[in-house]
Amino acid sequence: MANDHGEPAPDASAPATRDLAPLLRPRSVAVVGATPDPNRIGGRPFAFLRRFGFPGPVHPVNPRHREIDGVRCYARVRDIPEPPDMAVIAIPAAGVLDAVRDCQAAGVPALTVYTSGFRETGAAGRALEAELTALAESRGTLVCGPNCQGVANLLDRMQANFSSALAQPGLKAGPVGFVSQSGLFTGILPAEFQRRGIGLGYLVSTGNESVVDFADVLAFMARDDRVRVGGYLEGVRDGRKLAAAAQVARERGKPVVLLKVGRTAESAAAAASHTGALAGAYDVYRAALAQWGILEVDTIDELFDALEAFAVGTGTARGDRIGILTNSGGLGVFGADRARAAGMRMAELAPETVAAIDERLFDFASAANPVDFTLQGLTDAAAVGSHLAHIARDPNVDATLAFFGVQKLNVDALIDEIDAANRLNDKPLIVGWMLGDEGAPPRLRERGVPCMRDPAAAVAAARALVAHAAMRRRPEEPRAPRPRPEAAAAVAAAPPGALSEWRSREIVAAAGIPVAAGALAADVDAAVAAAESIGWPVVLKVDSADIAHKTEAGGVAAGVRGADGMRAAWGRVMRSVRERAPGAAISGCGVYAMAAEGIDLIAGMRRDPAFGPVVLVGMGGVFAETLADTALGLPPLAPRDARAMVESLRGYPLLAGARGAAPADLDAVAHSLLALSDLALACPDIAELDVNPLRATPGGVAALDALVRIERPSGVRRTAP
Amino acid sequence: MANDHGEPAPDASAPATRDLAPLLRPRSVAVVGATPDPNRIGGRPFAFLRRFGFPGPVHPVNPRHREIDGVRCYARVRDIPEPPDMAVIAIPAAGVLDAVRDCQAAGVPALTVYTSGFRETGAAGRALEAELTALAESRGTLVCGPNCQGVANLLDRMQANFSSALAQPGLKAGPVGFVSQSGLFTGILPAEFQRRGIGLGYLVSTGNESVVDFADVLAFMARDDRVRVGGYLEGVRDGRKLAAAAQVARERGKPVVLLKVGRTAESAAAAASHTGALAGAYDVYRAALAQWGILEVDTIDELFDALEAFAVGTGTARGDRIGILTNSGGLGVFGADRARAAGMRMAELAPETVAAIDERLFDFASAANPVDFTLQGLTDAAAVGSHLAHIARDPNVDATLAFFGVQKLNVDALIDEIDAANRLNDKPLIVGWMLGDEGAPPRLRERGVPCMRDPAAAVAAARALVAHAAMRRRPEEPRAPRPRPEAAAAVAAAPPGALSEWRSREIVAAAGIPVAAGALAADVDAAVAAAESIGWPVVLKVDSADIAHKTEAGGVAAGVRGADGMRAAWGRVMRSVRERAPGAAISGCGVYAMAAEGIDLIAGMRRDPAFGPVVLVGMGGVFAETLADTALGLPPLAPRDARAMVESLRGYPLLAGARGAAPADLDAVAHSLLALSDLALACPDIAELDVNPLRATPGGVAALDALVRIERPSGVRRTAP
Repeated sequence: MANDHGEPAPDASAPATRDLAPLLRPRSVAVVGATPDPNRIGGRPFAFLRRFGFPGPVHPVNPRHREIDGVRCYARVRDIPEPPDMAVIAIPAAGVLDAVRDCQAAGVPALTVYTSGFRETGAAGRALEAELTALAESRGTLVCGPNCQGVANLLDRMQANFSSALAQPGLKAGPVGFVSQSGLFTGILPAEFQRRGIGLGYLVSTGNESVVDFADVLAFMARDDRVRVGGYLEGVRDGRKLAAAAQVARERGKPVVLLKVGRTAESAAAAASHTGALAGAYDVYRAALAQWGILEVDTIDELFDALEAFAVGTGTARGDRIGILTNSGGLGVFGADRARAAGMRMAELAPETVAAIDERLFDFASAANPVDFTLQGLTDAAAVGSHLAHIARDPNVDATLAFFGVQKLNVDALIDEIDAANRLNDKPLIVGWMLGDEGAPPRLRERGVPCMRDPAAAVAAARALVAHAAMRRRPEEPRAPRPRPEAAAAVAAAPPGALSEWRSREIVAAAGIPVAAGALAADVDAAVAAAESIGWPVVLKVDSADIAHKTEAGGVAAGVRGADGMRAAWGRVMRSVRERAPGAAISGCGVYAMAAEGIDLIAGMRRDPAFGPVVLVGMGGVFAETLADTALGLPPLAPRDARAMVESLRGYPLLAGARGAAPADLDAVAHSLLALSDLALACPDIAELDVNPLRATPGGVAALDALVRIERPSGVRRTAP
Repeated sequence: MANDHGEPAPDASAPATRDLAPLLRPRSVAVVGATPDPNRIGGRPFAFLRRFGFPGPVHPVNPRHREIDGVRCYARVRDIPEPPDMAVIAIPAAGVLDAVRDCQAAGVPALTVYTSGFRETGAAGRALEAELTALAESRGTLVCGPNCQGVANLLDRMQANFSSALAQPGLKAGPVGFVSQSGLFTGILPAEFQRRGIGLGYLVSTGNESVVDFADVLAFMARDDRVRVGGYLEGVRDGRKLAAAAQVARERGKPVVLLKVGRTAESAAAAASHTGALAGAYDVYRAALAQWGILEVDTIDELFDALEAFAVGTGTARGDRIGILTNSGGLGVFGADRARAAGMRMAELAPETVAAIDERLFDFASAANPVDFTLQGLTDAAAVGSHLAHIARDPNVDATLAFFGVQKLNVDALIDEIDAANRLNDKPLIVGWMLGDEGAPPRLRERGVPCMRDPAAAVAAARALVAHAAMRRRPEEPRAPRPRPEAAAAVAAAPPGALSEWRSREIVAAAGIPVAAGALAADVDAAVAAAESIGWPVVLKVDSADIAHKTEAGGVAAGVRGADGMRAAWGRVMRSVRERAPGAAISGCGVYAMAAEGIDLIAGMRRDPAFGPVVLVGMGGVFAETLADTALGLPPLAPRDARAMVESLRGYPLLAGARGAAPADLDAVAHSLLALSDLALACPDIAELDVNPLRATPGGVAALDALVRIERPSGVRRTAP
């Protein structure tokens, strides 16, 4: 099935993002609630659209005026002869639904609703917003907002954001597209990028997201070749739409940089109270963004710096080897430290490079990376340019950083040299310009050289370029989910609630994860027979959906040998369980083969309110107890995702064969995660699943215990397909 | 006295830092090499000292001039009637030693040597510098440099740094003292603090540190109540002087903020090539700074921001609970995330606080922490002030942060309100002022309110205040080292090189660390007798200084029972060792009690070229293999240091009793580290010591294996005392 953009949907049930062309590239606009006073919110869009030279018609709509600023004002949108593509709604909440109906009647496909007084204000507002959403969806109307500052697309001269921050003279159109769930960025983004001398493309404040949401805007901007994309994210209601937006960006090789806030339970609550967004768990966001190739940053500075690097810069880093040139040994050493802290490597310069640099360097300066040209920049810009060119051309360098501390002299000549070095090849070059001539950074940016305020920021920006390039190099490995009918049948046959170990194992095994050989024995004779068939010794485990902690209930006997041993163990287990878990319904005992020694993992699946199913893998044992050493992944997992999850564990070296031990079967571990991904997508009734431990050995993996919890509406058992 | 490893002796004779009063607070100054041209380096100190109004006499010295700018110029320093406290040497390297002799003959106690051409230039320069050092030390002359930019003490109008960055008009004297091992900070520190409107006290560039070093300057500034102290550190040659400087600061409750660069092997090499400083391992620096109460920061921004917070701010944080007030919900959530990421807590505001704020807040705004006052700041500064006061007075708040995004209106009134809130009590208040009126931050600072460029920086600055206050609250617990004569005797009796397990255990036991019961058996009969006395089963381990890996050599038999078992095991071990380690000298076998189950640690001691002895503790087993989960401490350890080391381990929850298990005997673990600290200080011949494993159980600890390596010159065995 194709989505609205004619692309194959990532999985059949995933909602597609919306085509926002009428909203963000309208050919004509109406302003409902327009007034002649440009200081009032209703007066601004009309004034701003005209000030920015919107090329199409702008129709004021307000029954109280006949004309505004010489333009005919209509009483209703329906009265406009040609229906506009987009209407801005700037009237009190009480009139909004009528205005929407008026727009729908006129055939307007997109609305931007500034008005507050909806979900953010309590129960009545929530009800009003639900009506708005239903009304919009009944006719497929795009609604940005309510309670938003509006939409701006400066590249097409469409400025319908009411913030005065976006009405500054001199605001340049340019290569940055931004979507924000906070009005904050409407203020700081234009201020900061104007300071940097970088133009803005889109700036969309999504407000309450009654219809159009963060992912819709992200996907739309990702399709526009004129911009690089950033966003400020508090929370999404449907993680799969974010996946779809990320997919759009990935297919286009488009970098997307996000700052996700609300990372702790308490700050997420603050974000929710502030926007009403549903807060999925942050660890799921973090995993999802990484898996989907979206760059996550930790601070506003990093967000802006990375956006600048992508928007201004031109190069592509083929690796993570950094070459540094600087006028200060101190900055060079500091930058080298930061590069390593960011997970990159300092390039080992080729001998020819060192020799060539050394030839023109002052005697006491250092031609090793970081290259310190000391005071040479004050007198000999050509030498600095030569050093820079040698570094940029060195085959061992993937990206070049140039740090200038308090450079105030010789600036024009240095800019020319940096510019020339940047044109030598398509490797990235980033400048860290610290406390020198303030005119230099914007001029460098004009020439296509990203310029950060200090070496630390330059390193962070380089890190973003390196990470994005690495993401683009990673194999796509698309893999269609492979649902297993036998697993679906086992789930359908299961009762709601927590299942016993045996039933849980059945589902796990049907999903394709190996389990230890075993049988469910209703009585001791059956247990002996099962053990004879499995081979002594065996583990005997009481099987009951009612006993969560079998060992604590005395329900486990390990190393059981021989029929007599089994009779003794069976008696002990049953007595103990009857005593410690008197009400438990007992389906018998599981008889299981003793497992080979290995490394214990935890594997499982849970459901996140925003993202749906999430697959988990973690180290068992002491790692689980002390480090919570786990990794998450979002179905559908690709093989590379499953491998990346396992490799990200801190205990990974143990699996890979620490100290010369034989490595565990990593393919089998990854395969188990893919099996969980398939199962999670195929069986929405599984609320939770834990395999603990999943024992990994050089010969494969085996689930040694499992717990599945089924949740389905009204508790009705589904029949197997 | 130096020990055999070339380290200064680590005992009561720890070198004190030098009194730099003649250097940094001279009453009179001579300038050797003075010229009338203020554009030449020799002309600058004379010009700068006068421009800054140095209150004492400044004597130019240069045989080629009779007077400079109306002041009599002397041919030699000796000719000056009253010897100056300090002489600046600004002549070529060839003449420096003669100039030093001239100054010494005149009785000048302190010199600042600008001149390059010493250690930084190769072998001849190193020899020249060694001569300079010897000459200076022969007469107790203080020398700053050579190859330095000089010294400035603006509080006393003594500006003898030749950098033009320190000659700017309008450079204010103020509360920041800074010492740098790079000329970099001579450029960026004045530029940045002038931008912030904060005055500078000291700025000292230590150059090659032929005599006066980083620690001397740090300690001197720490004693001056007029300044807070910061520094840029590439490396020290004697860590104990840094300890002494830290001690001075700690005794005065004075914050010291350092940026240590050269953190990786390669960047440390770059730093060394750049300054010639010896590079101790960075993990030792990190541990030392934390243990000694010095705040380490990771970036130049954090360095400057923390310095501002200490220099401008007045409050003391009694805990780590942060209250946030903001005009942007987005900034509030972002700030809350950063506070948690920095290890602090968001305060839970008292109900009275919430109620009082709520009363004056706009309807749709949020009175929970972070408190978002939305647009109220545009119209009602008094309400903002009231919110701020309620937060600052809340008993659950230890420090208040106020974030303003793009605040351009109502700024005067807001500054008054912030100022008033800051005066309510002695809790810290820090503003994050992002992209608003640029005049506000300096004005806030003038009123004693630290003002950072954004919420992330404000949080980092608050973190510095919180950490410093926590450091001041921690108990000093001074503990004199307790050398054990029996340990010293065992070390003195040991041969040089690696010792066998048995000899190593003897030293460890004599140092006060429990070892498993055992005996060294020369033959199998002795082994049987020993085992009878210890109790079967036992572990049999070949004892040889030549066999580093006993297990690999087949030299270990565990669970040996009975005389026959012992004979079999003995034979197996001996055969195997003869085969696999044919040349090894074998002193017999150790017979050891089997150890109780427990948690395996690694404990030990090594020597760092800059810091001398370093005590180490780490988790054994999988943690050691995968995480290198270790902590370092510098002798002499206090009990709190030993506890802090153990608690900093990622595996600490296992020791503390994860999942309801009985906790290990943490006092016994800490005691073992104190014993290692004592041993390291008392026995400089121990080059290296490893206890691996040190098994920790609820009942105590036991060293189950040990390796000691002795290093002493010429291999002469010392006699026991």
